[in-house]
Amino acid sequence: APAADKKLTGLVAAAFTPFTAQGEINVAEIGRYINYLREKQGVRSVFVNGTTGESMSLTVAERKTLAEAWCLKAKGKMDQVIVHVGCMSVKDSQELAHHAAQIGADGIAVIAPSFFKPNTAEALKKFLHEVASVAPSLPFYYYHIPAVTGVNVLGRDLMEGIEELIPSFRGVKFSGEDLMDFGQCVSYSKPHWSALYGVDEQLLAALAMGAHGAVGSTYNYLGCHFNELISAFEKDSLDQARTIQFKVQELLSYAKKLGFDLGVNKQLMNEVSGLCLGPPRLPLMPCPPERAQSIMKKYHSIFPDC
Amino acid sequence: APAADKKLTGLVAAAFTPFTAQGEINVAEIGRYINYLREKQGVRSVFVNGTTGESMSLTVAERKTLAEAWCLKAKGKMDQVIVHVGCMSVKDSQELAHHAAQIGADGIAVIAPSFFKPNTAEALKKFLHEVASVAPSLPFYYYHIPAVTGVNVLGRDLMEGIEELIPSFRGVKFSGEDLMDFGQCVSYSKPHWSALYGVDEQLLAALAMGAHGAVGSTYNYLGCHFNELISAFEKDSLDQARTIQFKVQELLSYAKKLGFDLGVNKQLMNEVSGLCLGPPRLPLMPCPPERAQSIMKKYHSIFPDC
Amino acid sequence: APAADKKLTGLVAAAFTPFTAQGEINVAEIGRYINYLREKQGVRSVFVNGTTGESMSLTVAERKTLAEAWCLKAKGKMDQVIVHVGCMSVKDSQELAHHAAQIGADGIAVIAPSFFKPNTAEALKKFLHEVASVAPSLPFYYYHIPAVTGVNVLGRDLMEGIEELIPSFRGVKFSGEDLMDFGQCVSYSKPHWSALYGVDEQLLAALAMGAHGAVGSTYNYLGCHFNELISAFEKDSLDQARTIQFKVQELLSYAKKLGFDLGVNKQLMNEVSGLCLGPPRLPLMPCPPERAQSIMKKYHSIFPDC
Amino acid sequence: APAADKKLTGLVAAAFTPFTAQGEINVAEIGRYINYLREKQGVRSVFVNGTTGESMSLTVAERKTLAEAWCLKAKGKMDQVIVHVGCMSVKDSQELAHHAAQIGADGIAVIAPSFFKPNTAEALKKFLHEVASVAPSLPFYYYHIPAVTGVNVLGRDLMEGIEELIPSFRGVKFSGEDLMDFGQCVSYSKPHWSALYGVDEQLLAALAMGAHGAVGSTYNYLGCHFNELISAFEKDSLDQARTIQFKVQELLSYAKKLGFDLGVNKQLMNEVSGLCLGPPRLPLMPCPPERAQSIMKKYHSIFPDC
Repeated sequence: APAADKKLTGLVAAAFTPFTAQGEINVAEIGRYINYLREKQGVRSVFVNGTTGESMSLTVAERKTLAEAWCLKAKGKMDQVIVHVGCMSVKDSQELAHHAAQIGADGIAVIAPSFFKPNTAEALKKFLHEVASVAPSLPFYYYHIPAVTGVNVLGRDLMEGIEELIPSFRGVKFSGEDLMDFGQCVSYSKPHWSALYGVDEQLLAALAMGAHGAVGSTYNYLGCHFNELISAFEKDSLDQARTIQFKVQELLSYAKKLGFDLGVNKQLMNEVSGLCLGPPRLPLMPCPPERAQSIMKKYHSIFPDC
Repeated sequence: APAADKKLTGLVAAAFTPFTAQGEINVAEIGRYINYLREKQGVRSVFVNGTTGESMSLTVAERKTLAEAWCLKAKGKMDQVIVHVGCMSVKDSQELAHHAAQIGADGIAVIAPSFFKPNTAEALKKFLHEVASVAPSLPFYYYHIPAVTGVNVLGRDLMEGIEELIPSFRGVKFSGEDLMDFGQCVSYSKPHWSALYGVDEQLLAALAMGAHGAVGSTYNYLGCHFNELISAFEKDSLDQARTIQFKVQELLSYAKKLGFDLGVNKQLMNEVSGLCLGPPRLPLMPCPPERAQSIMKKYHSIFPDC
Repeated sequence: APAADKKLTGLVAAAFTPFTAQGEINVAEIGRYINYLREKQGVRSVFVNGTTGESMSLTVAERKTLAEAWCLKAKGKMDQVIVHVGCMSVKDSQELAHHAAQIGADGIAVIAPSFFKPNTAEALKKFLHEVASVAPSLPFYYYHIPAVTGVNVLGRDLMEGIEELIPSFRGVKFSGEDLMDFGQCVSYSKPHWSALYGVDEQLLAALAMGAHGAVGSTYNYLGCHFNELISAFEKDSLDQARTIQFKVQELLSYAKKLGFDLGVNKQLMNEVSGLCLGPPRLPLMPCPPERAQSIMKKYHSIFPDC
Repeated sequence: APAADKKLTGLVAAAFTPFTAQGEINVAEIGRYINYLREKQGVRSVFVNGTTGESMSLTVAERKTLAEAWCLKAKGKMDQVIVHVGCMSVKDSQELAHHAAQIGADGIAVIAPSFFKPNTAEALKKFLHEVASVAPSLPFYYYHIPAVTGVNVLGRDLMEGIEELIPSFRGVKFSGEDLMDFGQCVSYSKPHWSALYGVDEQLLAALAMGAHGAVGSTYNYLGCHFNELISAFEKDSLDQARTIQFKVQELLSYAKKLGFDLGVNKQLMNEVSGLCLGPPRLPLMPCPPERAQSIMKKYHSIFPDC
């Protein structure tokens, strides 16, 4: 089992995957990306090849190349690089888990397979176990996102007895609105586990429920504000934390009304950061320029100084 | 417009409707019920004829009889009696709203009609306006519970410009897990409005988001614990508040695994309170006795002193 | 139990409820409506106060007035008047069932209650039984429409042993796309029962599966074409039947793209028939005039002679 | 564009993927499998690496090995081998499409990607186009299964103008219950296209709507009965066709009540055929033996002679 001394906390950016204009992965941009997160957003950990990274649209070879580049370039700059290795195929996931161990990732995460859906906690645990067992020295995180996967196993049920099965288990990225389940996960967690919340627009609620950290896509470009939110929360300045959360909500609910998918999200990151992460890959469509403009205008009106 | 000086806050019990063993409404139990809420649970406001009160299974005449008994017997004992007057038929709702004004209710609430679903905020507002306008002197609350009604109009969109249409508008009972929408409702609320949260198992999260109060069924029998939770929250003792919330979650997640519908919920109230509220009415089925026993055992193990 | 000699077959129009411009029910139009169905559409049975009739938006008193008018004016002109008496409240349904027997209805039907949802076949049967038992001499039909009610009890499971519980049971109005369940209902039906299909746009498929008749809203204005479809089917002219079905599909899929709710449907009936059935009642919104015009243009292009 | 002379019709078995007891693909069983389909079930075409074949749980390399074995061993024995090449990643799909052309497949099919969901017909067509264009000489089929993918683009909308974009387009495998959409697909189809239906339990309904053939998993072991059903239908013996369809429905609704996922389905095939196709791969779980026994008992009671 991995060392228990690197508990994952704070903000973790769910990284976008940089593409060239031709739609090929563009590892050259990763160095700049890491500097940006660290210097401009105060973010020190990344979650790569996850949903935000369009992993399901990548080949296994591309995911390896990306994971390797992230681990290499983050050395000395990021606290932790968590590599998501979940695939529809358990064999592909095993290959990626094995690879993650070789390249020095700080941990791996696995989403529930969503085409064939494990319909019990037992089936899901068996699947995760098959993957975790090929990289037993790496901290293992379960990535819970039922609205996307359609796998409705409760996070708390997944955790039941998980350490006997997966000694490297270290926590959950919980991307759901069911805060009873999330609270029960927090309550059940061992001290060296991390209950990380994944719905950025209501992070404050999860902090109240005891979240140890957060993984999300908007931390790429709103990290500085969320770091302030977390500081305010830790100082019991709930009013201040709430003010920041409401601002984020105002931006994101505005974006949602216009249509806010991953392509739009990525374009916001391009515009706020100045990085060249390109458009998303099919079946996602590029962000219509006028939509990005409208949202950026709103962004500047809500966050004039950043 | 109604006086703006009675802002609804704190815990509001969503009242069960007392039935006789023969399935007829039993207003005789209401006096004892009110005393119980006040003395044992520290609850000073009630929401009657709502979902918990099985209003949709009652006739218009029964709803009037119940509303009248609640208003009469609560006088001097409860701070506020809010009468839910929502029906599938706007005409039935109008009749009940008119009646609520006559019997001295402190406010009325209306759920979105769920058989024919208003599919825009505009249609929903028109429906609510038709009801509110027959009782213009009563504070008016919108009852938002999208998972039950299937009406997915955002609470925040409903609030947009609502005071011009419904001058008596005073807030929302928000029974949903979308805390971005809830946060935006809180943020948009006028000082004399109330953003009341309705998912008891995650009340703490909503308090962090700025909830002014809470309406729910478990406050009938867990009100004393939730009052402690709110006190702890107000004193910035988040750890203590969280401990109480986790206990409630432990009980309710246990109940949910066994099957926790309104019939089971009502039976818990019968057992905890000693009141005789009877079984629910069809199409709800009575709680299987062994299920009530299992949940009560869990209840006593979690809350040994109450 | 009722006489077993009036098996319900053929097309049954799910009747719209006529309203005045002021939104009050308008029984004066019912006589003309009946003549129109009989003479222009060749339809000889009606299903009143159902979904198409906006029953859930009506008061109990209004439903009685309407049922009475339909029964009275249909005498000698229609083969059967089926009165839908389903309500959210079992007591309201009982009152309407009792009334239907008094006014000489040819049968009653009941939808599953959809606010509180019976979650087993047993609970649903109990509810239906409570209603049927106050009008034991009237043929009783279960109205199955799971996509609207959210009650996912299979029709076939509902039928299991139903005659012992409800001796007046005579069949089902099956408004669903699950033709395995519908086929199993047909297969299980007693000779004096009727398996009536309710998704007009795929009636031909249900006829192949053995449907004995059909209840739907478009038979109000497309009845003549559907009568031809049925005739063709009965003569094994499947190609001809399919041609008519495809035409109907072309019209309805066009309407669906523009937005085809009950308000639009009602306006089509007004325009095709020349009757004055008014707009729908809230929460339904009136049909935007330009939408009705577009659909009527399509209608005339597909059915130039009728 | 491919030759237009091999219109796909009749029964197409959606093939299971043979696994060894150790969970590795087992191409050695494919020859026997083909003989079984041809000789015992009268099935002359197969759809490999589809949902039934657990393609999403396979690696790209495994899918190639399987496709190759099927094409090789089917030569001279099967009319057509359609290779499903749909993946979450467009690049993986392209690789498989290119490979299918090299190994002499008779056609390829692509499912809508379901993790990131194309939310317009345009996005879906672009994705399909990217895949089809690397194998322009192979007949291309779109695999429509909205309940599984969550991609709710209508089949008819997908077909609109598709031949300009994908000249090799040859039809759809339509696995859905919306027979209005299916009917509109049939009606819009060019003479050399195939509208193939994929919900075995209601094939008769689709035949009435004009289906040209059928692709499904139960044709693996109920093909002989379905061939009879189709013959009866073609001779206008609807009663006879219905009797067979009802028998199949009786079996499948019985299985559904016990739990009928792909693991169970595969085990039925093992038991009926005597082939050794093994258990499914994770996240699917093996069929509990007592469940297989119960369903087999039912099978023998319904189909005593086969």
